[in-house]
Amino acid sequence: MAARITENVGNGYGSLASSDEELIDVLGASLEFSPHNEILDGITGREGMEVCGGRLGRGEGPPCPGGFLDLLEEPIPGVGTYGDFNTIDWVREKARDRDRHRKITSRKKESVCSFIRSVFDAWSGWLVVTFVGLMAGTFAGLIDIAADWLTDVKEGVCLSSFWCNREQCCWDSNETTFEERNLCPEWRTWSQLVLGHTDGVGAYLVAYLCYVAWAVTFAFLAVSLVRVFAPYACGSGIPEIKTILSGFIIRGYLGKWTLLVKVVTLVLAVSSGLSLGKEGPLVHVACCAGNIASHWFPKYNRNEAKRREVLSAASAAGVSVAFGAPIGGVLFSLEEVSYYFPLKTLWRSFFAALVAAFVLRAINPFGNSRLVLFYVEFHTPWFLFELLPFVLLGVFGGLWGVLFIRGNIAWCRRRKTTRQGWYPVLEVVLVAGLTALLAYPNPYTRRNTGQLIRDLFNDCGPRQSSELCDYRSNYSTGGFGPNSTWNASGSAALAVREPGPGVTSAMWKLCLALLLKILITIFTFGMKVPSGLFIPSMAVGAIAGRVLGVAMEQIVAAHPDWVIFSQWCHSGASCITPGLYAMVGAAACLGGVTRMTVSLVVIMFELTGGLEYIVPLMVAVMASKWVGDAFGREGIYDAHIRLNGYPFLDAKEEFSHTTLAADVMHPRRSEPPLAVLTHEEMTVDDLEGTIRSTSYNGFPVVISRESQRLVGFVLRRDIALAIENARKRGEGVVSNSRVYFGPHAPPLPHDAPRPLKLRPILDLSPFTVSDQTPMDIVVDIFRKLGIRQSLVTHNGRLLGIITKKDVLRHMAQMINQDPDSILFN
Amino acid sequence: MAARITENVGNGYGSLASSDEELIDVLGASLEFSPHNEILDGITGREGMEVCGGRLGRGEGPPCPGGFLDLLEEPIPGVGTYGDFNTIDWVREKARDRDRHRKITSRKKESVCSFIRSVFDAWSGWLVVTFVGLMAGTFAGLIDIAADWLTDVKEGVCLSSFWCNREQCCWDSNETTFEERNLCPEWRTWSQLVLGHTDGVGAYLVAYLCYVAWAVTFAFLAVSLVRVFAPYACGSGIPEIKTILSGFIIRGYLGKWTLLVKVVTLVLAVSSGLSLGKEGPLVHVACCAGNIASHWFPKYNRNEAKRREVLSAASAAGVSVAFGAPIGGVLFSLEEVSYYFPLKTLWRSFFAALVAAFVLRAINPFGNSRLVLFYVEFHTPWFLFELLPFVLLGVFGGLWGVLFIRGNIAWCRRRKTTRQGWYPVLEVVLVAGLTALLAYPNPYTRRNTGQLIRDLFNDCGPRQSSELCDYRSNYSTGGFGPNSTWNASGSAALAVREPGPGVTSAMWKLCLALLLKILITIFTFGMKVPSGLFIPSMAVGAIAGRVLGVAMEQIVAAHPDWVIFSQWCHSGASCITPGLYAMVGAAACLGGVTRMTVSLVVIMFELTGGLEYIVPLMVAVMASKWVGDAFGREGIYDAHIRLNGYPFLDAKEEFSHTTLAADVMHPRRSEPPLAVLTHEEMTVDDLEGTIRSTSYNGFPVVISRESQRLVGFVLRRDIALAIENARKRGEGVVSNSRVYFGPHAPPLPHDAPRPLKLRPILDLSPFTVSDQTPMDIVVDIFRKLGIRQSLVTHNGRLLGIITKKDVLRHMAQMINQDPDSILFN
Repeated sequence: MAARITENVGNGYGSLASSDEELIDVLGASLEFSPHNEILDGITGREGMEVCGGRLGRGEGPPCPGGFLDLLEEPIPGVGTYGDFNTIDWVREKARDRDRHRKITSRKKESVCSFIRSVFDAWSGWLVVTFVGLMAGTFAGLIDIAADWLTDVKEGVCLSSFWCNREQCCWDSNETTFEERNLCPEWRTWSQLVLGHTDGVGAYLVAYLCYVAWAVTFAFLAVSLVRVFAPYACGSGIPEIKTILSGFIIRGYLGKWTLLVKVVTLVLAVSSGLSLGKEGPLVHVACCAGNIASHWFPKYNRNEAKRREVLSAASAAGVSVAFGAPIGGVLFSLEEVSYYFPLKTLWRSFFAALVAAFVLRAINPFGNSRLVLFYVEFHTPWFLFELLPFVLLGVFGGLWGVLFIRGNIAWCRRRKTTRQGWYPVLEVVLVAGLTALLAYPNPYTRRNTGQLIRDLFNDCGPRQSSELCDYRSNYSTGGFGPNSTWNASGSAALAVREPGPGVTSAMWKLCLALLLKILITIFTFGMKVPSGLFIPSMAVGAIAGRVLGVAMEQIVAAHPDWVIFSQWCHSGASCITPGLYAMVGAAACLGGVTRMTVSLVVIMFELTGGLEYIVPLMVAVMASKWVGDAFGREGIYDAHIRLNGYPFLDAKEEFSHTTLAADVMHPRRSEPPLAVLTHEEMTVDDLEGTIRSTSYNGFPVVISRESQRLVGFVLRRDIALAIENARKRGEGVVSNSRVYFGPHAPPLPHDAPRPLKLRPILDLSPFTVSDQTPMDIVVDIFRKLGIRQSLVTHNGRLLGIITKKDVLRHMAQMINQDPDSILFN
Repeated sequence: MAARITENVGNGYGSLASSDEELIDVLGASLEFSPHNEILDGITGREGMEVCGGRLGRGEGPPCPGGFLDLLEEPIPGVGTYGDFNTIDWVREKARDRDRHRKITSRKKESVCSFIRSVFDAWSGWLVVTFVGLMAGTFAGLIDIAADWLTDVKEGVCLSSFWCNREQCCWDSNETTFEERNLCPEWRTWSQLVLGHTDGVGAYLVAYLCYVAWAVTFAFLAVSLVRVFAPYACGSGIPEIKTILSGFIIRGYLGKWTLLVKVVTLVLAVSSGLSLGKEGPLVHVACCAGNIASHWFPKYNRNEAKRREVLSAASAAGVSVAFGAPIGGVLFSLEEVSYYFPLKTLWRSFFAALVAAFVLRAINPFGNSRLVLFYVEFHTPWFLFELLPFVLLGVFGGLWGVLFIRGNIAWCRRRKTTRQGWYPVLEVVLVAGLTALLAYPNPYTRRNTGQLIRDLFNDCGPRQSSELCDYRSNYSTGGFGPNSTWNASGSAALAVREPGPGVTSAMWKLCLALLLKILITIFTFGMKVPSGLFIPSMAVGAIAGRVLGVAMEQIVAAHPDWVIFSQWCHSGASCITPGLYAMVGAAACLGGVTRMTVSLVVIMFELTGGLEYIVPLMVAVMASKWVGDAFGREGIYDAHIRLNGYPFLDAKEEFSHTTLAADVMHPRRSEPPLAVLTHEEMTVDDLEGTIRSTSYNGFPVVISRESQRLVGFVLRRDIALAIENARKRGEGVVSNSRVYFGPHAPPLPHDAPRPLKLRPILDLSPFTVSDQTPMDIVVDIFRKLGIRQSLVTHNGRLLGIITKKDVLRHMAQMINQDPDSILFN
């Protein structure tokens, strides 16, 4: 066991998944890998894979989630394709693309056909992102419409046309005022249908029961579909997409089947009232669309690096349709998701995001022809003293982020390591039932979380009739009656507002809702249904923000003469906008959980459209990030990546230790020497022996074992293919044929069998570093160039090899040794 | 002459600048470099440097523009500092920063002082960008105020307080209506002062003369100040900043002296009425501020890579204050200017941009408390058929971009290669005089270009009194009089508008203005005054767009029954917004010149604030970029970088040729072998001989000349320092002392002099590639890692070396051989 080029990280737990207790954390504390576990298993050898905290044992998997893709791959996997759960070599992939491009452009002038092909090739980048945008927008629209309908189905049904949601159902009814339209005769609640009336305890109980029953049914359907048809469809998908974009291969994760099931189950999961959102999964859906679209273009289909450019654009389109924020989507893709993001991709991502946003607007799922999920317009400015509550919200968001990440990871780990993980359907059904039971009595949790956030963001205008805006206006200057409510008079802007009974009760209900959301979200994220955490996180923040905003309002109203208030805020309490607090709180909580910064502020900015409110948002997001980072720098996605042991080399984390390449490379001192091939001394037999007795993905080729002068690097797969090929073609290659990697055949006795020339499969430019290279530079090289392995030399002699996995493991070890070290850089 | 590590590209023309004809184009067609020109000259040896098309010969330079900086550098330049016109090694710089960081954090717990230092160090990143934002905002505000005042001085003076501009002067006067306020008694035009009245030919001539005289005076002052005090203050500075950010050192380019002179001369240049803007120079000003601020923090002062992070943030702040578009500024920095842009920098850049924008708003130079330079609010949507004129504007913008780039570069080349370049002051004065002469008669060119653009962007609302809005409203539906003008009636939105005499005459004047702007801008950009091209380019586009918009409006008004119009545009001509056309045209022209994409669209989006108008902008910018790219992919900044021969390795350009590292490395076959040092056989004498007889920046160290096994790499400067040091300390090192680079001294006879140990200065981890590595991969490595040189090996033997300059030269050669190759990738 010497050379270690096994980049096949997935198999580490794959081969162990059938035993219950032993779960390996590639990057976690328990680095139980031994070289013997790292057998190259290929696609067929895979027995299981950890996704979404559940476990896909043998036979538990889908019939063939990757089948759709495999048909489109090249029939004989040749040089340059990768096995499942392998990492790609960015440098080679990009070199291959340049080769392809060169060939096409050089043939451009040969014939009309070649010219057309070259033009098609040049434009395929734009075509593919256009398709991505169209598909992402369409899917988002469909999901929105379907989820709206199903959410309403929990409460009632439209008699005239059952496929309509409540709003559409009542659209055509004659009642014109807002209150009457809510009572439109076409829409029947379940208690009306069952009992014939809506009053009394009985009706309430029937409605309650139906609500819970529908919720449990939807959740059951969702989890069953996921388990039976597409296990990859669960979760938010963002950790996996980050890993895939960083150069890992998970076949079928972005396939048609996953797409279909994810769309359907996402609708079900959202409608079931579980504390989850559709924003993260929308990114997954968009990436599936991107993957499918890239199959139509050879430029992207055959090149893993190029395909990832499309996926980056797709993730931007996903966020763009999730929030109606195209610029924010691009920045999200840049900041959070993407790994390799050249400027060309930036422009195309922007295009895809815009196309998606406009398709969504054309579909108009919310019926208000607004692009934006939560359209807000504030009219009052904010004042400097408000920065203090904004910072408080930031601190709250940071703390919530820490609590959520720790709690959720602990729960997910428990799910992975105990028997609990064996009953994912039961878990989902239980959580859905519990959520519905606890949520129904409280009107703020009963409804769609998106609508709740929208209401919390909104300022109380004169036409707002909700409980949240039930203020008594206390006119200190005007001559109006002192107790006229806000609703009655349109221009109460200068009045001091005092909370009406509605606001007081709303505050209590909101506090209860906050508690419920905080607790239930921790257990929801990571279950085997599609689940995003943007919306629940924002809901937590929005509730907290709104409560704080109302509290501030009352403080100002009670003490309008305090210096700090009277100086800034001439008009009494109306200078506080509780909606803005809700928005700031939502940004802070989302920031605490995801540790996004710029993209989050920009998304929020796109919601309001006013540069005015960037400062509060920024202050809160910064405070939240700093507070969160003080307890651990990982966002939820990175934590899940680590939990699942994906081979993700984070570009954000600085490596700041003094180790050298020699400390990380294999073989270590206690291990047998590096398995190398010599360039012209071996026979086919020797070669096959080496392949059989080792399990490495590739072997360095040297001049001789004594000199250890490096000639090149050859992949195991390519050797096997070459020998097989030579045997098939019957070129006289036998077991004792000499194998040579040099440009010319070595001198052979004339009766020797025909030699096997392996020069064409030899990589003559493997990466090398010296053994004295500091590991921080090595990490930088791996990160920036995206290579799979680097050979290590000392004074021109080959010494060993470092693979991406060695780097990852070393980084994890260093962090475990000295957890403080990453706090303050 | 073998090893070529001389990265000192600047000296190529530096040493030749005293001769007139021979100007070397590092990247241009005339690759006349021979190794003999590449002598390392250091700072003092520099004789001249090409900046802004003029020439700084010996003695022509400033007294000491870099003097302020040099005082703050370390007194003895040790390992890790760079000479002027050298490229930095990003990998080493970042490794040095990590070392520094490690040291500080490891000492953190030793004492309170160390703890404070570590906290200060951790926060200095935020502090420095705060300062950058504050300074950038302040300077921008000052420049705006001063330029406003001086621009008005060309036409008259405020009697009550001469330092007030016209608006401020008339602010306090009693006349309240808009028309009367223009006639306020405090403000006197020059003809009023000279002749006592403003009517008649005489008064016009006096005003004309004064206008021209002031313009010439301001221009003369500007160019003289630049020439005498800070030659680096000329131009827009963006090409140089791009080069500096990519890792080149130009001492004094971002110094205090340059900052001061640039601020003053920018005000003068803008006020002189030359066809130039202040936006590009504002980026330079912000970067100077960034450089100065980074001197206050050891983390950034001593590390060239870290300092470039601050400069990236500063350039974002510069654009942020130039347009009031913080997000656009960050994207501009990311897309156009920066080279190394980690995510941490993204967030800090955003912060700096916001701080700068809010400081500017606090200063409130425009008196309207708007953040945005051109605040626009459109009320009518655009219609699908309008995409055609938008694409036309895009094509126009692309063509203008090509014309401008080619014309300007040809002119600048002429300035460099002929005697014309010897009279920069005369040139500026002539161009300023000509501009003023031609501009005064036309009211649209006479005024401040920024104001012109603002007016062109604005839609004709009911309260607009300008000539551009002089429409006759032809009421087809209402019962109003048919010839009431727009101005008279406030609500003519549904009327068909016909051009009044004002609009017709405005169109003619605008066409003349367009012609003037197009021609004069080509000759203006690149003169020896601070000059940005954002505003002139936008003006060209805005004029063209407005003219097209009015034309469209009239077509629609004349044929409201055409299917295409009647279908979309129910209300006749009012469905066309000429202001939107102006905006789209401005974006297209700016895009054609700079080839910016996302950042441009985002900047424009931030001006309008409506996602609605992103599609027209995007369509036009795309069309403009594609048309422009069809004639050559370089934007104006890249063209200037190439013209001036800066060593800039563009991250955007794909290298798609099949050459290998062996084709690019030195020594070539015809050249003598590589100059190497052996690790333990040389004496101090041998070493000094090698240093004297060659001029390379560094030398590879090998085991022996026969084996050519690489041990490490050592810098010339470090060898010289080490020998000097050893002699100074009197450690018994004499000429025949043995020098060894290994960890242990070689066995020496006991009477031998004390050996000199050079291990500490040996870089044990030089980058190596194999000779068979394709050049596209090598280019990628240089680009992504930012290294200065890479050694080339073959089968473990050292063969040669490739420097960044070799790479640049090779890329230029390849492009010259096959100019088509970069068109379609």
